[in-house]
Amino acid sequence: VTAPVRRLCVIGVGLIGGSFARALREKGLAQKVVGVGRSEANLIKAKRLGVVDHYFTDDPAEAVREADLVFFSTPVRAMPEIVKTISRALAPDCIVTDAGSTKASLIQAIEPLLPDSIQFVPGHPIAGKEKSGVRASKANLFNERWVILTPTARTKKAALARVRGLWEACGAWVECMPPAEHDQVFGAVSHLPHLVAYALVDTIMGWDSPRPLIGYSAGGFRDFTRIAASSPEMWRDICLENRKAILKAMDRYGQTFAHLRQMVESGDGRGLEKLFSDARAVKAQLRHAKRLRAERKGLR
Amino acid sequence: VTAPVRRLCVIGVGLIGGSFARALREKGLAQKVVGVGRSEANLIKAKRLGVVDHYFTDDPAEAVREADLVFFSTPVRAMPEIVKTISRALAPDCIVTDAGSTKASLIQAIEPLLPDSIQFVPGHPIAGKEKSGVRASKANLFNERWVILTPTARTKKAALARVRGLWEACGAWVECMPPAEHDQVFGAVSHLPHLVAYALVDTIMGWDSPRPLIGYSAGGFRDFTRIAASSPEMWRDICLENRKAILKAMDRYGQTFAHLRQMVESGDGRGLEKLFSDARAVKAQLRHAKRLRAERKGLR
Repeated sequence: VTAPVRRLCVIGVGLIGGSFARALREKGLAQKVVGVGRSEANLIKAKRLGVVDHYFTDDPAEAVREADLVFFSTPVRAMPEIVKTISRALAPDCIVTDAGSTKASLIQAIEPLLPDSIQFVPGHPIAGKEKSGVRASKANLFNERWVILTPTARTKKAALARVRGLWEACGAWVECMPPAEHDQVFGAVSHLPHLVAYALVDTIMGWDSPRPLIGYSAGGFRDFTRIAASSPEMWRDICLENRKAILKAMDRYGQTFAHLRQMVESGDGRGLEKLFSDARAVKAQLRHAKRLRAERKGLR
Repeated sequence: VTAPVRRLCVIGVGLIGGSFARALREKGLAQKVVGVGRSEANLIKAKRLGVVDHYFTDDPAEAVREADLVFFSTPVRAMPEIVKTISRALAPDCIVTDAGSTKASLIQAIEPLLPDSIQFVPGHPIAGKEKSGVRASKANLFNERWVILTPTARTKKAALARVRGLWEACGAWVECMPPAEHDQVFGAVSHLPHLVAYALVDTIMGWDSPRPLIGYSAGGFRDFTRIAASSPEMWRDICLENRKAILKAMDRYGQTFAHLRQMVESGDGRGLEKLFSDARAVKAQLRHAKRLRAERKGLR
């Protein structure tokens, strides 16, 4: 059984930070929750919703004082500046963790700023990227969702186990991997699909046509537009932080797309049908992955 | 009020053909339904489900005899051969219509094969491309869905009005446009998104990685996989038939994607954030289109 957090400080009380606080509260695993953010309106809402007990808009150092867990859920690029401000105010037994979508460059930026005594457990919950704000937060957001933890050379086992235990209490499946591998995997299965979708939405919206194309978008396009509601700031930071892995993924995609275009141009019916048929196997692969997760859950 | 079809002949009794027959039957608008197909197992199912009264696997000419409406819902490329077989058996007052996803080249192939007395009303219902087979068919598939009709120079107003009336009885919104415009519009909003998604699924599935990437696909990729369940044969034909419009759309997309890649490579945070923010407007455009359709419905 995981011990409760005495004082949880959530920096960035939006969908993810708010949901983490709610989930821990619901399980009786957060005795006190303090929120930090730029928008007072949002923090007032968070307090009214019972997500935080107190909040600070302009003094993160004061907010983290006496916290035994600091949870970063701001856009990735905002984190290092805040770490600078708070590092000397952190209690010696405090664990710092985060929910940033990219890991390697973030760790490089943050870890050197933290005192040696402070344990940093980098993390990434794979959940809910389409809505934002504390209003959208909910206690079960992470239930049966992946959380990837990417411990560094400095992360001690006890701190990793502590953070893992809290996420598992939220219902999440926790997986550990090296930061660079995380960035490769999510560059491919998350960042690339978002960029592919953004490019499509941009193409269709910019298409000058006598009829508004959008009106006929039932047949395929609509699936892509959900993604367009994601936070522009978050995706900008992801592109800047995971640049290398994203470029690699974009180039692989570009090659496949060019190959497909070539088959269309040359009227290669066989090749097209083969590619489309092969793609059907993805459904079986997804079912297989689901089965593996179910087994994993059974073992827990 | 639309008069019932005395004898409806559905060629290709799958999701679309089956749903059209069910919808007309439910409204009392099809007295007799005859099915034509290659798979007897499927046609037996169709008969058992009450979708057709009779079926023919190897004699389409016999099937269309005395039909006053022939509805083609086979893959596009299969249609001309069947038209050749049936054209002399068609009753003089018969209307031929279809549900093919591409129009201009199909019309070019089919119209010259039909006797002058036969009215051809080319159509395209924008509904249900992810499932297939008569088992998935349902009477309300076209309810509040677009059906595009693309009359030719030879199509008489009465025949067009007849087919429009039947689709409207199925609950569809009917819109007329020239065949070439149809192909441009759906090349952009339907065919391009499918190819973009197929290329993505192919890229991720072909990615050699120590961990199965598919297992972590919650964050973006999953939205694309629904498309991969579509009929490979249908999409092959669409690519072959709407080649020109699809290549144009792929090239526009390719330019946007290259621009996005360039911004990632050069670390252009401002440009990225602007593109991501602009994409959010698509949601408002979709809402606007929905409002227009609702008004249209009110007027009917």
